[in-house]
Amino acid sequence: MTGTVLALNCGSSSVKFAAFGPALEVLFRGQVENIGEGLAPRLATADGLDAAWPPGPATHDAVVRRLVADAIVPRAGTVAAVGHRVVHGGTRFDRPVPVDDAILAEIAALAPLAPSHQPHNVAGVEAVARALPDTPQVACFDTAFHRTIPPARQRMALPRTYHEAGLRRFGFHGLSYESVVARLPDAMGAAAAGRVAICHLGAGCSLAGVVGGRSAHTSMGFTPLDGLMMGRRPGRLDPGAVLWLVERHGGDVEAVDRLLNREAGLLGVSGLSPDMRVLLEADAEEARLAIAMFVDRLVQEIGAAAAAIGGLDGLVFTGGIGENAAPIRARTLDALAWLGFRTDAGANEANAATITLAGSTPSAHVIAADEEAVIAAAAKALAA
Amino acid sequence: MTGTVLALNCGSSSVKFAAFGPALEVLFRGQVENIGEGLAPRLATADGLDAAWPPGPATHDAVVRRLVADAIVPRAGTVAAVGHRVVHGGTRFDRPVPVDDAILAEIAALAPLAPSHQPHNVAGVEAVARALPDTPQVACFDTAFHRTIPPARQRMALPRTYHEAGLRRFGFHGLSYESVVARLPDAMGAAAAGRVAICHLGAGCSLAGVVGGRSAHTSMGFTPLDGLMMGRRPGRLDPGAVLWLVERHGGDVEAVDRLLNREAGLLGVSGLSPDMRVLLEADAEEARLAIAMFVDRLVQEIGAAAAAIGGLDGLVFTGGIGENAAPIRARTLDALAWLGFRTDAGANEANAATITLAGSTPSAHVIAADEEAVIAAAAKALAA
Repeated sequence: MTGTVLALNCGSSSVKFAAFGPALEVLFRGQVENIGEGLAPRLATADGLDAAWPPGPATHDAVVRRLVADAIVPRAGTVAAVGHRVVHGGTRFDRPVPVDDAILAEIAALAPLAPSHQPHNVAGVEAVARALPDTPQVACFDTAFHRTIPPARQRMALPRTYHEAGLRRFGFHGLSYESVVARLPDAMGAAAAGRVAICHLGAGCSLAGVVGGRSAHTSMGFTPLDGLMMGRRPGRLDPGAVLWLVERHGGDVEAVDRLLNREAGLLGVSGLSPDMRVLLEADAEEARLAIAMFVDRLVQEIGAAAAAIGGLDGLVFTGGIGENAAPIRARTLDALAWLGFRTDAGANEANAATITLAGSTPSAHVIAADEEAVIAAAAKALAA
Repeated sequence: MTGTVLALNCGSSSVKFAAFGPALEVLFRGQVENIGEGLAPRLATADGLDAAWPPGPATHDAVVRRLVADAIVPRAGTVAAVGHRVVHGGTRFDRPVPVDDAILAEIAALAPLAPSHQPHNVAGVEAVARALPDTPQVACFDTAFHRTIPPARQRMALPRTYHEAGLRRFGFHGLSYESVVARLPDAMGAAAAGRVAICHLGAGCSLAGVVGGRSAHTSMGFTPLDGLMMGRRPGRLDPGAVLWLVERHGGDVEAVDRLLNREAGLLGVSGLSPDMRVLLEADAEEARLAIAMFVDRLVQEIGAAAAAIGGLDGLVFTGGIGENAAPIRARTLDALAWLGFRTDAGANEANAATITLAGSTPSAHVIAADEEAVIAAAAKALAA
């Protein structure tokens, strides 16, 4: 294949993009933010291109078509293939797949499993189909990486009928984990083939227990609500508490869904912000409580992951918080010192690739997630 | 105080009792089982008393009054005090309390937090008040032991308003944990003052992370649904899965409550039985799956508990499964060998007090729970 490979990640209010050359070298990357009703989308690229786009009905379709026409094609030349991040692959998709109309319909049918993400992913594919009608497209699923989790661990402790109806532990953030796994040998050497817990800490947070580069455990479940505390989501919550919330909201499941997806987590506890950067700067008791709870839940889930995969050779932090919030990493490693972590305080402050001292077993690392690189590699491999 | 101290544990279908002498030595103990609509209650004591009672309207009131009049007073003489297990103490009761009418009303008002247990506990107190109107009674709460858990860990990751409305991590099985803690020095020596995970594995299952004999962590939350997989309950379940279940049941929260409290867990997965003994004997794929899931969840929760309390000096199994199911303990310790456990296979088969080899760090133990001893001690101490 010659020509540029484009990776697109169409989220609810942003579109991330990256263009790769024939050897999958990065040509340029950037994002359009602030997409949505009444907002003014803004384009930014790493190398400085920055433009406020006039306000208007900024649908994903309009944004993606304009992005391709104005920002990508003039710089990238021929686009040979486009890869998309798709949040949910259900039980159907355990690897990337070239998209045709039938496949796209299957992807769209999974929207009830990820209602706040999947429709935007689908809209991105449709927009590219209109903008570049002859360009092959490939869908890459955030759930696919976890299909190697043992079946007993994907099963919920409920009668089989619910499993057959599709209720199971899917797991998410798979493209992030896959990109980290690809870089593990650089950080860990031969130990990269061992037992590693990867913590993806961004707006959404989850962790994966990885053995030999394959997922064996994850903290998220059927939806992206379970597991770690997040910016706006509570993570693990007593099932009886969820039923109590439904009754307290007069049976309004949508209101509880909104509470758990939008108003809980760091934002709910702090009353201030879902953004860890803001909380770390804040001088407020509730902000400190939110941070303490975030770290405590993270520490416990790392303990559970270690137990699930039979111990730890390494621990990786990735995602916006994982890559940048040194105090969160320091507190986490401190609470896990009993496992053998010996933090290198200076390296941690510097967001270095290895943040434990030489000889620390397990070791701990910071690795930037690059979902777009994973998407582009799949698109290049699969596009006819 | 002279006279006998009686401990009562009024469950949904059984009443356990134990009578203690002035030095809190056990005089006799037993239980009435099979209580409920259309059943024939059956009395059994450890020293052989065994009688089928004629069927009839076997309310807790009738059973307790008859138990006191026919089985206890004739053998025990004067009853100086009666202590009761009460499942839920809410935020109000962080220790045992003498019961008067006002306190009993407060206890009854907590019934919505434990609808399948609290009403029976209250009925037991009322029955004794009628049978032995001048005898002081003391309520002992299963939640009280966990009130030492750090506040940030009792808080749910939700806006403060829900916390103020009473939604918090209460924890349960506290009387069992308290009885185990009292026996820890016999099993562990000086290490009993360290970091210990106690696994209460019965019909309900939870674990506690204990430091210096005080609860610092527990796997159960607001209700007895969270945490470990149980006979009929799933334990931890993605909050999004709970919402999905409510929608699938057409908004019928009671149906989902029934599913999660009665039809899930070991019974739901195996399709055979909620009873671990039955599953361990069964030659069925679904039974093996249920057991594998039970052990996997237990192993992960022990890992989380270890992380929550900064490592483990010891691990204790108690409750019906914990005290008797050697294969479950063996598989759990095997999966946790990376923590340093070295199982003594013979001791484990024999349900011995210590089931790890000399020098194993951490060590593992089997300690029989004796809630009635804890209840009697509190009743003796508090009854005027």
